[in-house]
Amino acid sequence: MEKGNATATINIAETSSERKGKAPLLAAPMEHAKGGYKRGIAIFDFVLRLSALVAALTATITMGTTDQTLPFFTQFFQFQASYDDLPAFEYFVITNPIVRGYLVLSIPFSIVCIVRRPHAVGPRLLLIILDTVMVALTTAVASAAAAIVYLAHNGNPSANWLAICQQFTDFCQKVSGAVVASFITVVMFLFLVVLSAIALRRN
Amino acid sequence: MEKGNATATINIAETSSERKGKAPLLAAPMEHAKGGYKRGIAIFDFVLRLSALVAALTATITMGTTDQTLPFFTQFFQFQASYDDLPAFEYFVITNPIVRGYLVLSIPFSIVCIVRRPHAVGPRLLLIILDTVMVALTTAVASAAAAIVYLAHNGNPSANWLAICQQFTDFCQKVSGAVVASFITVVMFLFLVVLSAIALRRN
Repeated sequence: MEKGNATATINIAETSSERKGKAPLLAAPMEHAKGGYKRGIAIFDFVLRLSALVAALTATITMGTTDQTLPFFTQFFQFQASYDDLPAFEYFVITNPIVRGYLVLSIPFSIVCIVRRPHAVGPRLLLIILDTVMVALTTAVASAAAAIVYLAHNGNPSANWLAICQQFTDFCQKVSGAVVASFITVVMFLFLVVLSAIALRRN
Repeated sequence: MEKGNATATINIAETSSERKGKAPLLAAPMEHAKGGYKRGIAIFDFVLRLSALVAALTATITMGTTDQTLPFFTQFFQFQASYDDLPAFEYFVITNPIVRGYLVLSIPFSIVCIVRRPHAVGPRLLLIILDTVMVALTTAVASAAAAIVYLAHNGNPSANWLAICQQFTDFCQKVSGAVVASFITVVMFLFLVVLSAIALRRN
């Protein structure tokens, strides 16, 4: 640990020079002192990305397999509900693979951030910008689907839209589950942005 | 400008010492070299915040004043549409003041970032985290309202929900305008996050 001691001495020297008004050196000693803390953030970022991938996958599978046919039919048509009957759910199923693809592609960058910590400013900046875009994208589809699910459950007397969940119970349950999984993905993306911001600050 | 020259000399000295393996000092010289560029970012951040405030205000006023009564009525009731008939639009009107309040409160922090550039890491970090939360919040309400507006325009034959925009044309136009204004706010928040990330990187 003689290297660590040498660094500590340099830090002290720099800190005293800062008091004389050379503040720009502030970032450098902090980075060395909190090396372990930063590696922890990078590893947590990686774990969070894997969890977000699982949540997004759950959301798509749940939504993609919603297909309920009622056991009775009239003379003219059979009652059937599937995700592709409602545009909001279709966008949900189309957008989720984009989010999953991004998460898979971002994992190598996350590993780069763990391995090459002090030099990983570029990848970190790229990740924070794309993560924020993903927050917006995931929230948009999850929230549009949530609005339609709410309508399917409760209906709307003013617009004369009737609730359809009394008939299509399985359909509604699955769709609600997918919306919840999607909001969990949103929360994970929010944490990823916060982590990246904290990590970026020390560079 | 003799102070600037002194700093430049120090920078060169540090850069040469970096080549000997003291990479952590990398952040410090960059910050001085790109001082003007960073002040530009801070000012653009301030302008963008003001524009987002205007966009959010437009969205709320447009949505809050949607109230259309049809010029005919039956024996039993008069046809009337207002934003508070649909929960998605109600959330929109409730959430927008929160966004506006945050924008107003964040403007002093933005000014702090302009004035005290090299030391403004704390405010910058606070702004990037809260901006990201606002991206999620604004997108959520805008997108839920968009899903309902789409339904009001097009209806849904599978769920037997009829389009109501043939009757309530004014209502639908105003609501669509509010949704567009809200998505403009989202785009501005996205830019704010990107700007903060770039500014944070140099610290």
